[in-house]
Amino acid sequence: MKVQKQSDIKSYRASGFIGDYQRLVRETVIPYQYEVLCDRAGTEKSHVIDNFRNAAAALRGEDTGDGFYGMVFQDSDAAKWLEAAAYSLACQPDAELERRADELISLIASAQDKDGYINTCFTIKDRDRRWQNLLEGHEMYCSGHLFEAGAAYYEATGKRELLEVCLKNAAHIYERFVTDGTPGYPGHPEIELALMKLYRVSGDERCRELAEHFVNVRGVDPDYYVKERRARNWTVWGNNAEDGGYQQSDMPVRRQSDAKGHAVRAVYLYTAMADIASETGDSELAAACQRLWDSITQRRMYVTGGIGSTVHGEAFSVDFDLPSDTAYAESCASVGLMFFASRMLEGRVDAAYADIMELAFYNTVLAGMARDGRSFYYVNPLESIRGIAGIAPTQRHCIPQRPSWYACACCPPNIARTIMSFGKYAYGESGDTAFCHLCAAGEVSLENGISFSCETAYPFGDTVTYRIRKGGRIAVRIPRWSRQTALTLNGQPADAEIRDGYAYTAVSEGDVLAVKLDMHPRTVYPSARIPALSGEVCIMRGALVYCFESLDNGGDVLGLSLTGGSITECEAEELKGVTALSVPAVRRETSEELYSDAPPKQEKYTATAIPYFCRANRGETDMRVYLPYV
Amino acid sequence: MKVQKQSDIKSYRASGFIGDYQRLVRETVIPYQYEVLCDRAGTEKSHVIDNFRNAAAALRGEDTGDGFYGMVFQDSDAAKWLEAAAYSLACQPDAELERRADELISLIASAQDKDGYINTCFTIKDRDRRWQNLLEGHEMYCSGHLFEAGAAYYEATGKRELLEVCLKNAAHIYERFVTDGTPGYPGHPEIELALMKLYRVSGDERCRELAEHFVNVRGVDPDYYVKERRARNWTVWGNNAEDGGYQQSDMPVRRQSDAKGHAVRAVYLYTAMADIASETGDSELAAACQRLWDSITQRRMYVTGGIGSTVHGEAFSVDFDLPSDTAYAESCASVGLMFFASRMLEGRVDAAYADIMELAFYNTVLAGMARDGRSFYYVNPLESIRGIAGIAPTQRHCIPQRPSWYACACCPPNIARTIMSFGKYAYGESGDTAFCHLCAAGEVSLENGISFSCETAYPFGDTVTYRIRKGGRIAVRIPRWSRQTALTLNGQPADAEIRDGYAYTAVSEGDVLAVKLDMHPRTVYPSARIPALSGEVCIMRGALVYCFESLDNGGDVLGLSLTGGSITECEAEELKGVTALSVPAVRRETSEELYSDAPPKQEKYTATAIPYFCRANRGETDMRVYLPYV
Repeated sequence: MKVQKQSDIKSYRASGFIGDYQRLVRETVIPYQYEVLCDRAGTEKSHVIDNFRNAAAALRGEDTGDGFYGMVFQDSDAAKWLEAAAYSLACQPDAELERRADELISLIASAQDKDGYINTCFTIKDRDRRWQNLLEGHEMYCSGHLFEAGAAYYEATGKRELLEVCLKNAAHIYERFVTDGTPGYPGHPEIELALMKLYRVSGDERCRELAEHFVNVRGVDPDYYVKERRARNWTVWGNNAEDGGYQQSDMPVRRQSDAKGHAVRAVYLYTAMADIASETGDSELAAACQRLWDSITQRRMYVTGGIGSTVHGEAFSVDFDLPSDTAYAESCASVGLMFFASRMLEGRVDAAYADIMELAFYNTVLAGMARDGRSFYYVNPLESIRGIAGIAPTQRHCIPQRPSWYACACCPPNIARTIMSFGKYAYGESGDTAFCHLCAAGEVSLENGISFSCETAYPFGDTVTYRIRKGGRIAVRIPRWSRQTALTLNGQPADAEIRDGYAYTAVSEGDVLAVKLDMHPRTVYPSARIPALSGEVCIMRGALVYCFESLDNGGDVLGLSLTGGSITECEAEELKGVTALSVPAVRRETSEELYSDAPPKQEKYTATAIPYFCRANRGETDMRVYLPYV
Repeated sequence: MKVQKQSDIKSYRASGFIGDYQRLVRETVIPYQYEVLCDRAGTEKSHVIDNFRNAAAALRGEDTGDGFYGMVFQDSDAAKWLEAAAYSLACQPDAELERRADELISLIASAQDKDGYINTCFTIKDRDRRWQNLLEGHEMYCSGHLFEAGAAYYEATGKRELLEVCLKNAAHIYERFVTDGTPGYPGHPEIELALMKLYRVSGDERCRELAEHFVNVRGVDPDYYVKERRARNWTVWGNNAEDGGYQQSDMPVRRQSDAKGHAVRAVYLYTAMADIASETGDSELAAACQRLWDSITQRRMYVTGGIGSTVHGEAFSVDFDLPSDTAYAESCASVGLMFFASRMLEGRVDAAYADIMELAFYNTVLAGMARDGRSFYYVNPLESIRGIAGIAPTQRHCIPQRPSWYACACCPPNIARTIMSFGKYAYGESGDTAFCHLCAAGEVSLENGISFSCETAYPFGDTVTYRIRKGGRIAVRIPRWSRQTALTLNGQPADAEIRDGYAYTAVSEGDVLAVKLDMHPRTVYPSARIPALSGEVCIMRGALVYCFESLDNGGDVLGLSLTGGSITECEAEELKGVTALSVPAVRRETSEELYSDAPPKQEKYTATAIPYFCRANRGETDMRVYLPYV
């Protein structure tokens, strides 16, 4: 069963856990990020707004002021902020936010060249270097983010100004790469998935065609980047043009089987591939997507839904190389994994995809942001030990506390836009069926007419109640981790058809459909094929991966081993409203010797675990997801 | 009690285990390495001999042929080979080897400049760049290795040609840095320890004074390298001049407490410091040495005696950062740790030093060479898993099989010279006492007149028998790991005085002193402070660390956990004469799922462990030193 592609974000008004997070993003993250764009936040200079201002001046032949500042992809910060703002406006009107967004959109429009080209870096500094460096230039990456913002802003407000800028830019790119047949494909995939969004809101076939073009030509000439590199005498970072695997271009995409290279780029590409496969019914492309999905989820993914295990190139490593302490597991990569999962789900409804989408959201995307919305992680290791994390040469990237902003600010706005568009992941529709992929409290009304409210204390509570306002068929995902699930319709066992992890039930106005999930905490055993996790286990409850912070465990987690036995719910300090867990353990004494012939003394201990996404919110601490199991 | 510094290598004729290894080095390694120096071994070009030939031509104002090729420290390969050859000649005359060595020495002498300067790289290519780049230039490093060779060759043969070259070179350096007061100290310490050797064989006080000078000025101006860098417009590798910690120059050596930076450089420096401290009675310097020793052995050393846990700069990491799989643990660094231990032992006889010296020798230095003497490891990780080791971005340096040679060929000749001079580490003397620091079969005769033979199947056998030919006092180390040691004199319990881990016994001609060590295999528990080893143990027997190769364990070590229980001796395939161990274990089934809620089935298994130094000698295999303990 295929799910309709255009589930409308306006159909979901969040409450509960997601509602709280959306409020945090609306009230704190979006305003804060706007201040950053304007260089008023007191963080490292962003210059994003000034870049657009200066590019507009350059186009008018005027003095470009203080020129261009920042990364070659600096523009994308503005686009990601606009996209988050659009989702926010879709959820709840906000005249001041809309005014700011409109203002920024006009500024962006003024920085677009007559031919449709838009990119402040190359407009201000290097107009003759346009399109010369697809490997590193990020021009299409920035366009892609602008297209996502343009589509979202049009959906949210009906305003066309940004949409027109995007379509003009897309037409410019189409002309170059399709009409004129200029060889090349984007170094950082993103525009492909964005063009599909732009196509859906605008109906402009060239957008779909251009997306397909870039997917189809990728890797057909695996030496494209080498030739491009040879033809120019400059680079941005000196990237290795010959590493086709890193660029997902060592072979045509339809032949690819292993998730390779830069993790964010990879899943952005796979997202577009899955989108196009289900849009066009391309079964060869769909099969490649499934192979890449399996490569990720069966061999190259952390239990948290984190992907890209190595800091070297922010990339996938080889199968089963999933170290906890040196993990990269970028927040953005898990955002991308959610994209990929949602597109796979649109091709074929199967809880396997939604399970991973949820895993990535709760355990890596959310972990990327502090609970106060004011600091962010790029990197999400599964272990962080004071004195080593952030200091040891192999763990310099694993800083123990979230910084407030980054010079390369991709993750914070990426997290913001994902939270604000949660409805797009949680709910879907197809014909007369409403899909509840994720549990998300709030009011839902779909284009097929079905509407209902969802009440739940998820991800902590075990019950999800759907009160039907307008009926039809409702398909509720039964997560694989729920070993015993009760589905009732108006208090009676529901007559549901279970297929591929979804329970399909016919519902009418006034019906109350309730799902009771098995929220018993469970011990999770990683495959013996993962060398870094031999003899170790972790604890999950529902969708949440738990971790042990030394703050809750007598100042030390390194001596702890889990012993099995009954895990019970409890509270952790300074984490109100969060279900913590008491876990039977032993604690080994720390010997003074580095290596000792004497077995360490050990005593019983009740360890406290908190959800991983809450980690590092209460000051310096050691943290471990996995503990030895004895 | 201090040990005399000049224990004469000629006093030890090895037999048994060490004798076999010395024969391997004499018959295989030294001839092979000579072929490498001459570019006749079919390995990557070395050009070492040609460099000296071309430098001599350059000095004569002639055409320098094909110029200089190789690393800036390429000359040191010739010196290390000569040093190994010298030790070999000291053990056993070999006219052909001596002829080759003499020939090479004459060639080296011909490449020495009139002023005493000797370095082919700067003589051929960059005479005006002499001494401009102490940070990276390795001029003093090469001199140091030449001095070690010169001292050893003079001791072995009584021939002075190389010694005179060295003394002239030392005088040249003395003039520049002491007489003229030119600021600076060596980027790669080595000359300091070598000057002390040169001082002892030659009696030239300037050598000792120059060694002390370099130790004393180091880090006094911690910005020396920054200033040097600013004063020149070239670098060798673009090393970071500002990282004083990496250079062991962020503070004067007497204030240093943490073993930092490039591990080989660090221990070479500490070796000279310890040598000077005991030579001069400098208690402040001795205290610094003890702090650095403790830093290494209590917080920064693998159980194998490997040091420098990170590939990033081949360096020490922070305390307790000792990962098994990404370890660097360079063979040369453990050679250097043996140097440091031996100098500490000369300052104060304590089995703690000798225990570590032995650990490093048997478990890292020996592991660096294949059992056929034809291939070598730089890097000695404690885990190697097929498909990850050598391939994953964090483990590219951990190649599963020993290569036959390296472009940067420091380790192979370093291992060779250490094996050939084993007597210098094993035996010492002071006044009327003979020290047996390490168990080493063979004939021993010391300058104080004591002589004896040592019979033992060590490191596998548990008994060491000393047959006294000429008596005195004999001090035998009782290794700390031997929990029950029996010492008998002529079959009766010996009347020994035990002090700092040594048993002192008066012996006369004809006496038979026998030591029976506790060779029961033991389970070793790493400190809970080492995050990478939580819940894991390893197995040792005597001085040997054991490891588990999948070759002996049904093709898989990742599912194994140790359970305790009786460990027994056994044999492993293709490892005749080596004591392997049968170790009670369980094997967990490998689940198809990456993460599973179901506990894996497990069954009892008897795992087979082999000595770590024998690893990777029988084809591709997974290997683990540590296993989970349940």
